[in-house]
Order: sequence, then structure tokens, then C-alpha cells
Amino acid sequence: MSLVVQKYGGSSVADADAVKRVARRIVETKKAGHQVVVVVSAMGDTTDNLVDLANQVSPQPAAREMDMLLTAGERISMAVLAMAIHDLGVQAHSYTGSQAGLITDSKHGRARIIDVTPGRIEAALEAGAIPIVAGFQGVAQTTKDITTLGRGGSDTTAVALTAALHADVCEIYTDVDGIFTADPRIAPTARQVPRITYEEMLELAANGAKVLHLRCVEYARRFDMPIHVRSSFSARPGTLVVSEGRTLDLASGLFSADRAARTTIGGTTLEQPIIAGVAHDLGDAKVTVVGVPDKPGEAAAIFQTLADAEINLDMIVQNVSAASTGRTDVTFTCPMGDGKKALAALENARDVVGFESLLYDDQIAKVSLVGAGMRSHPGVSATFFRALADAGVNVEMISTSEIRISVVTRADDVEASVQAVHSAFGLDADGEAIVYGGTGR
Amino acid sequence: MSLVVQKYGGSSVADADAVKRVARRIVETKKAGHQVVVVVSAMGDTTDNLVDLANQVSPQPAAREMDMLLTAGERISMAVLAMAIHDLGVQAHSYTGSQAGLITDSKHGRARIIDVTPGRIEAALEAGAIPIVAGFQGVAQTTKDITTLGRGGSDTTAVALTAALHADVCEIYTDVDGIFTADPRIAPTARQVPRITYEEMLELAANGAKVLHLRCVEYARRFDMPIHVRSSFSARPGTLVVSEGRTLDLASGLFSADRAARTTIGGTTLEQPIIAGVAHDLGDAKVTVVGVPDKPGEAAAIFQTLADAEINLDMIVQNVSAASTGRTDVTFTCPMGDGKKALAALENARDVVGFESLLYDDQIAKVSLVGAGMRSHPGVSATFFRALADAGVNVEMISTSEIRISVVTRADDVEASVQAVHSAFGLDADGEAIVYGGTGR
Repeated sequence: MSLVVQKYGGSSVADADAVKRVARRIVETKKAGHQVVVVVSAMGDTTDNLVDLANQVSPQPAAREMDMLLTAGERISMAVLAMAIHDLGVQAHSYTGSQAGLITDSKHGRARIIDVTPGRIEAALEAGAIPIVAGFQGVAQTTKDITTLGRGGSDTTAVALTAALHADVCEIYTDVDGIFTADPRIAPTARQVPRITYEEMLELAANGAKVLHLRCVEYARRFDMPIHVRSSFSARPGTLVVSEGRTLDLASGLFSADRAARTTIGGTTLEQPIIAGVAHDLGDAKVTVVGVPDKPGEAAAIFQTLADAEINLDMIVQNVSAASTGRTDVTFTCPMGDGKKALAALENARDVVGFESLLYDDQIAKVSLVGAGMRSHPGVSATFFRALADAGVNVEMISTSEIRISVVTRADDVEASVQAVHSAFGLDADGEAIVYGGTGR
Repeated sequence: MSLVVQKYGGSSVADADAVKRVARRIVETKKAGHQVVVVVSAMGDTTDNLVDLANQVSPQPAAREMDMLLTAGERISMAVLAMAIHDLGVQAHSYTGSQAGLITDSKHGRARIIDVTPGRIEAALEAGAIPIVAGFQGVAQTTKDITTLGRGGSDTTAVALTAALHADVCEIYTDVDGIFTADPRIAPTARQVPRITYEEMLELAANGAKVLHLRCVEYARRFDMPIHVRSSFSARPGTLVVSEGRTLDLASGLFSADRAARTTIGGTTLEQPIIAGVAHDLGDAKVTVVGVPDKPGEAAAIFQTLADAEINLDMIVQNVSAASTGRTDVTFTCPMGDGKKALAALENARDVVGFESLLYDDQIAKVSLVGAGMRSHPGVSATFFRALADAGVNVEMISTSEIRISVVTRADDVEASVQAVHSAFGLDADGEAIVYGGTGR
């Protein structure tokens, strides 16, 4: 008997019928002889609607209250999911993040888990019931206030519970069949990959792939816990996110629903492709600090200012200084939501930094090519830039890591860029990928 | 400085604008020098919508999960209300029933408060903040599961907090200007009464008046705590619910918003009318047990059966036995929602009770005349039945208490009955009553 943590995203429980379908899947897993703990996100567009309501009431909603508000979403989905399971003759009890022992720091809206004390969950399992846990939320250790882990945090809840309960696997159910070589909504020929390493998944998630939450992958890698990404709309085998050497004991019957597909999962380990996939991100803004004096300490002053304002920077580029002026331009990208805060922080520090002006642009896209294999394969960069050039895409910024190349282009060029790179690396599938639900998570 | 508990019903916080209006009223009370604790219901139709969702998912939703689901409603309203107050420059923190120390038994859907430990609320007050407490909900002492107090339970939350905090008054804000001599939606000439006793209010609430929850009035009477029923849509003085002798220190400035109206409230104490009002209830069903053997113990068997099934009975009538048959008919009313359960329980006990058949009718209305003054005024019954007869209303059942007469009529006759009785006792106002919101609570 295995202990499985199953996480269902918002599109998997978008309405009453979807909730009942998910309930059947959970009960099947239980009846196949496994213990199941379920983590669930808010139904469909609930979270967006709650955010809209908050914005109608307040121009800048108080962070503590925003968390209290948003956690109503999972409260609804977990209660109705428990009802639906109950109707199938299996005991199910819903638990808030607080009740499930998800202890966090007190940073509202982006709390980090500092402890998991799942006593009530273990008691429910012992009593033969299926615990349904609210994703995305916890309770602050010091203030006892309700916190949220940030958008998409339900994945992190699931992985944290998997670790705390020493569960065998964490299954993340979503509206696509697994991890794809690109977003199938942008690149219809994207191919599902049966297996991907934590490192590749981290780069994809950090660069815009929405299927898995970045912190969830970090957490899973730290504890070397396999994540199995699957669709709640099909019985397809999905994608395993695991460490590079690890093989999961697929013969254990843990994935009994896809016995037929096992050979495929096992077989592809040997033919690991060079490239894991193409990610894109439309959520960033680009800020250029124009005319910074080209002398030691100037960049440090800029980035200290941004760090003090708690802006997460992504790409940073400094152009070569024009000898005639002794000044240079520094450009960085950050989440669009932080763009105005970044501009304000820099304006306040204008005297210290001594720049001439600021440029802001949020009509950009970041397109990234990710693959552990590119480390040892020359020519990847050349193929990448040739593909973009042939598609007529202008590259505005470039950034690389050992297993990734990213460029910033115009937002309008995102589809052309992703498709061009995807084709150039031979990732195209024969048919079109299936997308089951909406865009909700 | 007084401590005021203000409760706002669902129609008072139906949308973002209503929430902002309520926030201004709360901040005004605070700025007038009072400490304020707020209890809030779910916004507008939220609770109904959540019930609909549960019914879509499950034919008979699990009670524990129904409570978890419904408590999401207040979570939303309290969070956005706290945001709106925050925007007016005053600290406000929302608290769930559990966080506010509302400790209940574990009867899901109709939990009773067994203790109130409002430590976090007192701490918030001490820190100068306005605590916003979720109405209608608590946490079970033994299971630590979330409970609800039953529909309309937010009134009870407010009164329980008023008692536990030793607050000076409990203000119940709703969508009408106070307690009326009849439902203004049924009898447009209904008059608002400035003052009413706990006993009269209990009879009105028990017989269909929706403005105050019955248990809230019982609770207030037990602790002799004044309730002030007011509209959140106007600054009118409202209705005081108090014990018969008690006068509230209105000169304390507690009701500073209606200084001008004070004389009216004070003045009417002396001219307390004989009749408090006319209540009506369309929520009952009538069950007749036909052909019960007319011998000792038969009625006891019927009512034990119904008690075992946890049916709350209201009116009970037994007709005189026809000497020829030795059998009689027993008729009772109960909440419409319990009607089918009552029939099933009686059918199961048919052998024990030995009746011939069961009749069921939910197209009935109960119309009640309530007034402490009727005890000492002869002729009240005569006027009551004359008025109904003149209006052509057929009376199907009659029940009386010291301060109430109730009849059951056809549901279609409810308006004619209420209006006829209301006029016959000289309760009609000159103009029409103002109803501000919808029918939500």
C-alpha cells in the first residue's frame, strides 16, 4: 500500500461535474489499495473573482485581509469535493491549511512554509478517511493569522505534505497531459515529455512554464520526491519530474491507471532529449536606467535600491559604455506587477544613483530554451538565434545559464518565436496537443 | 466611551458600494469616541449560491462539509469590510468565528454556542483596531471542526459577543428601519415601533418575523442586553428590544447619529401599544394523522416518534373524537423542510401508532397577532376573528399563548389576513414603510 498525495488545480474542479469526476478518480485510487491525501485549489475563476471584488472595494487591499479573502476559494472547493467523495461511500474530511498544520512565516500574500505538523491529516488517514486539504494557504506561526503562499501555491502545499507525510509520490493534476516541450496553446505541435529532471523543470518554471509552481519543484528537489504531473481529464501517463539518475518503481502498481503506458515511461529514460522544452513568459516588464555614470559602485547602488524595495529581478544587461559620455545604460526585467514599484524606488534614489532617465516597457515576451543536454552540445545557441532571425524576430535582451538560453522580444512576437525555436530543435509532434480545460489553475 | 457591537446583515453588505457605506458608518461610530466590534453576515445571496453549489454536487451534502462550505461566505464579507475600513485610515482585522472564540457543540448546521473566549478580539480592541467577526460560525469544542449556528445565526453571534465582551449595546443593522407592526412587504401600511419587549419580540420571531433571529432574542433576554435594530441604509432611530421596565441611557451619546430622534424613543415608553404587531410565516407544513385510535398513549406515541426524528413541532390540534368510530385526527405544523422527514418517521411507526392515513399540505400560512397588552384587554380575540371573517379568510387551525393568537390559513390568503388584522387593531401608518434592500439577510 502506497501513500499518494494528489493535487487538483482549479480547472480540474471548475464546476460541479468536474468536482464529481475528480471525486471518482480519488475514490478509484483509494479502492486500488492506496492511502490518498488530496490538495485542492479554488474552483475555476474563483480566485480571480475574489481579487476583482477586493479591487472594487479597495484601491490597495490590506495584505492580511487579502489572504483572509482568497482562502475562501479553497474552502469552497475542498468542502464540495469532500461532499462528492462522501456520496461515493468513502469518508472524506476537508481541512484548511491551518488545520492541516501548514505553518508559515507571516509575509502575507507570499508566505513561506516553515513547518508542517499534519497531525489531523495522519489521524484522518488512520481512521480510513480521505483528507482534503486546502492548497495555497497556511497559518502564521507568530501572529496566528491566515496566510497564502502566493499564486499557484497549491503545488507547494502538495509537495510539502508529501514530504511531511513521507508519502510515496506527489501527483499534480492539471488540464494538460503533463509537461510539454512548449505551451500547447502557443505551439500546437508541442510534445508531451514522459520524464524531466528537477533542474530542467526549475528552468522551465522560472521562465514562464505555468504547469508547475517554481517553489514546488525546489521543494521536491530538496527532498528528492518524485512529482507526477497528469491530466485530471484523461488516464494518460503524464510526466515524471525526478532527479537525473532516479528511476521510480513503476512496477509497484502505484500508477495502476496507466499500466499500459508504463513501458513508454520506462523506455524514454535512455533517449533523454538534448532539449527539454521552450518556455515563454508574458508577465515581465523591462526597465532601462539611462545614463548611469560608468564607475564602480553605480550598479550596486541600483540593485541595492531594488532589493530594498523587494523587487525580484530576472534578466540584467549592461551595455558597453560609450567612451565619449562616460555613461552607460542598465536594463533589467522584473514581474510586471512590480514595475511601478521599481520605477518609484529608483526615482527616490535618483540623487544617490545619478542616472539621467528611466524607460519602462511591459509589451515584452521572454522566450527560453531549456535542456540539460545543451551543456555538452555545441551549436545550440547558433540554431536558436538562426531560428529567431529566420522568423523575423528582433532580439532585445539575451541571458543564459548552463542549461538555458533566454531572449526578450516584442510581446507580439511570442508565438512566432516559440514556434520557430520549437521546430528548429525538432520538437514538433505529429499531431496537435490536447488542452482539456480553460486557462485556470 | 462605550463598547458597541454592530451586526450587519447580508443585504447591508450586498456589493462593493454597500460594503464601503457600512465601513463609513463603522468608522463614524469609532470617531464618535466608541469602541466598535463588528459582526458581519455573508454578502447578499452568497449563502444561497453556496447551498446551490452543494446541491449540484451532492443530493444530501455531508453536514460537516456543508458548514465548511457555508463559512466561506462570511470569510469573504469580513475580509472586504476590513479592507474598506482600512482605507478610511482605521485599523481593522477580520476574525473567523473560531479565531474570535465562538466555541460551540458539534451539531453541524445548528450548533449552539457553549462558550465565548474572545481573547483575540479584546487584544485587537486594546490595540485600537476594529475587530470584524464572521457571524453564523464557530468551532466545535470536542472535534475542532468548523460549525454553523443555523440560518440567521449571525444575530446570535452578535449577541453572544455583546455578552462576553460586556458591551453596552448590540446594534443589529438590516434593510428595514427597525421592527414593524407587520412585514412591510406584505402590509405596506405597517408602522415601525420604537420599542418592544423581549417577550413580544420572541413571539414575533417565533411566528415568522424575519428581522431578528429567535435565539438571538432569547440570548439577549437571558443576559438582559438591549438590542438596537436599525437600518444600515438610513440614520433613523430604529427599534429598541429591551426588558419591560428597562430604560436605556440614551443621554450617554451612544446613539449619537440620531440625537434628534431620541425624544421619540424615550417618549413612546409610556404609550406602549396593546398590540406589538402581526407576524406571518409561509415556511410551515401541516400534517394530519387520520384515524388515530382515541385512547390514552396514542398522542404520546405520535409525538415520541416525531421527537426521535428531531422534528420541531409548532402548532398541534386534536379534533374531538367522533363517538361512532372511536378514532380521532391529530394535526400539527412543522417547518416545511422537515415535512418529508416527519411523514417518513410516522410511516415507519404506523404499526405502533395505528393510524389510518397521513395528509400533507404545505400551501398554508400562519398569521399571528402578538402583544403583551392583550393579556389584560378583553375582546382582542373577537376583533381578530371578525377581521379575518370580514376579509373572507377561512381559518384552519388556531393556537394561542398569553400574548399571542395564531391561525393557519391558505397560503394565498396571507396578504389579506395580515392586512385585515393590521387595520382592525388600528396599526396602520399614514404613509408606506420604506424597504431599502432586497430580501437577503
